Amino acid sequence: MEWINGGITAPIGFKAGGVHCGIRPNKTKNDLALIVSQKECSAAGLFTRNVVKAAPVQVDQKALSCPKAIAILANSGIANACAPHDMENALKMQKLAAAALHVDQDDVLIGSTGVIGVDLNVDAIANGLPLLLKNLASDEAGSDAAAKAIMTTDTVKKEKAVCFDLHDKKVKIGGISKGSGMIHPNMGTMLCYLTSDVSIEASVLKEALKEVCDQTFNRISVDGDTSTNDSLIILANGMAENEMIKEKNEDYEVFKNALLQLCTQLAREMARDGEGAKHLITCKVHDCESEEKAEVLAKSVIGSSLTKAAIFGCDANWGRVLCALGYAGQSFDPLKTDISFSSLKGDIAVCKEGKGLAFDEEKALEILKEEEVIIDISLHEGDAEATCWGCDLTYDYVKINGDYRT
Amino acid sequence: MEWINGGITAPIGFKAGGVHCGIRPNKTKNDLALIVSQKECSAAGLFTRNVVKAAPVQVDQKALSCPKAIAILANSGIANACAPHDMENALKMQKLAAAALHVDQDDVLIGSTGVIGVDLNVDAIANGLPLLLKNLASDEAGSDAAAKAIMTTDTVKKEKAVCFDLHDKKVKIGGISKGSGMIHPNMGTMLCYLTSDVSIEASVLKEALKEVCDQTFNRISVDGDTSTNDSLIILANGMAENEMIKEKNEDYEVFKNALLQLCTQLAREMARDGEGAKHLITCKVHDCESEEKAEVLAKSVIGSSLTKAAIFGCDANWGRVLCALGYAGQSFDPLKTDISFSSLKGDIAVCKEGKGLAFDEEKALEILKEEEVIIDISLHEGDAEATCWGCDLTYDYVKINGDYRT
Repeated sequence: MEWINGGITAPIGFKAGGVHCGIRPNKTKNDLALIVSQKECSAAGLFTRNVVKAAPVQVDQKALSCPKAIAILANSGIANACAPHDMENALKMQKLAAAALHVDQDDVLIGSTGVIGVDLNVDAIANGLPLLLKNLASDEAGSDAAAKAIMTTDTVKKEKAVCFDLHDKKVKIGGISKGSGMIHPNMGTMLCYLTSDVSIEASVLKEALKEVCDQTFNRISVDGDTSTNDSLIILANGMAENEMIKEKNEDYEVFKNALLQLCTQLAREMARDGEGAKHLITCKVHDCESEEKAEVLAKSVIGSSLTKAAIFGCDANWGRVLCALGYAGQSFDPLKTDISFSSLKGDIAVCKEGKGLAFDEEKALEILKEEEVIIDISLHEGDAEATCWGCDLTYDYVKINGDYRT
Repeated sequence: MEWINGGITAPIGFKAGGVHCGIRPNKTKNDLALIVSQKECSAAGLFTRNVVKAAPVQVDQKALSCPKAIAILANSGIANACAPHDMENALKMQKLAAAALHVDQDDVLIGSTGVIGVDLNVDAIANGLPLLLKNLASDEAGSDAAAKAIMTTDTVKKEKAVCFDLHDKKVKIGGISKGSGMIHPNMGTMLCYLTSDVSIEASVLKEALKEVCDQTFNRISVDGDTSTNDSLIILANGMAENEMIKEKNEDYEVFKNALLQLCTQLAREMARDGEGAKHLITCKVHDCESEEKAEVLAKSVIGSSLTKAAIFGCDANWGRVLCALGYAGQSFDPLKTDISFSSLKGDIAVCKEGKGLAFDEEKALEILKEEEVIIDISLHEGDAEATCWGCDLTYDYVKINGDYRT
């Protein structure tokens, strides 16, 4: 497997684009993205578990009852959730794209991200669609424009692609995604769109997506808030002409592994670019009796406001890490628990068998000043492990969210 | 029932005091508190549910296996948790107080709050005890000194007392408590010590304490972090000479109601003085099918970082409130949900049946600028309700916790 350029337009047969259509006041910021496949795709999607589901999520869930799709139209700026005409506008948006592309309405999936409770300006979408269609590109520029059009408070676009072999066929997967607040396990205000030219049955594609999502996007947290709009969608158009994957065979594992690598990078990027974040925090819990338990414990650490604030302050305050493990609702023996911090600058053990170690504060500071900080926890009770990703809690998080609507 | 002065020394037969003994470097800040009853008390305690329990918590749990006590010795500055000699030092601390007071070791309860992982300076406690004993007072000054000695990042002391009648007897309850970080339902780094001259059996006292705690301290959150040291202890010495309460009779209800009023005020004060807080946030969920569900939903709202940051910014961002309800793990119908904000400056409806209402932003701003902001949520599905308290997320929270150890 190798990393390649091109994002969602790397796989054969996909075009993408993004324009400013007027949902956002700022004319220099794209706010409408379109992804189109040359052929009908096997499609699978995973959506927020929030009881309050945005209209586009409900529309996509219905559309995917038949797991085929050709295009995805997504806007940023307005979440189209809990607004007076949310469902009406979501259906209009889907219909507009279908008419423009001359496809069935159910072959178009839609997505929205932004402010909750405000009506979506569908006229702006109608006005912007002709230019968006004209701008669709099958090269890097198309993926780039689409990736930028779904950004909200993100500071960098998230875009990745991989290429791998299935026997004699080259297969590609590309992805774009956006954060960066309301991010919590069970997915955040996260939109992630994946494309692939792999040939795969929709039911098997969904299994792969679910397995990968549980180990990637469901293992990141920015702020503990699970959004109303989270959507993770993959389109696979079969144009790589590999033998169709119909079951969990060897090819499935190769594909799933490539998808896992891709989504791991996108998930890490989302955590790294969490609102106001200065640090990417990677928490690894190992020597645990089960992966599920390791995951719950690691999530508790990356979700702890006190731990996040300590990392912002480059403070090796491991007591907060141990404390966060302790309230995760899992049983473990604190007196067997070891904790260390590491980064590119080295590693330092701070807690052994539940008790503080004397350590070099200057070395700890040097380690914690790095952009990615790893918190390593060993429970000495088994062989299982899990890794979760989060970010620090900063002044800028408060600033960004103290006045988001205005 | 009436509110009275005197805190924990208001009930008959209690003395209290506080001194600086040297656990903290700052000599102007008291760090050791003592509460002593003239007679042996019925005693009850509730402690953190964190798997990682500080040594003093473990000592108190053991001591309360016989539910009698005479004194409480507590320090601030060091949590005496996860430190190399934590248990050894906790037992020394208990023993020192017992020797000084000439009582059995198990009649002394202890408490600590502060930094995790660092050994407690027991010599400082030994050196400070003589002055502390000398300073013990049965008037307001004693309660005041003790209340101040247990403060950490608290900006104001928390101290309340009430008086009520049980037939022809005046009964009093007093309390002191401290926050203000690591505060979350299941109690925070919360120490709360209550005294009463009521005559009550220890088993019934514990029931009352548990019922009241569930409706007060377990309904506040500052930052979602449940500490290793949370302790809520009540001592009742019987010196009011009421007929002993041995069961859940009418007198029990009168006593429990007074305790509830007292603890509600202490809990609100703790939330109000949350680290860096500028607003007290009161969230009321009503017209709900059960109190348990209403509580879970209200806790989700006061725990939402995004809602907390919005209140800091005086932003009527009700979408985040609805979103937080949605990820609380409870089922409800968003399309029946109403939300309004209120304060001393009036109230404003912002969401009706799950959809945003047009509202006067200037009026909303005026309401949200008040120190206590109430978020009212109606689910229109039943008669039950619950209220929880939290605080906003501010720059100062990040500042305080970005560098707490130094």
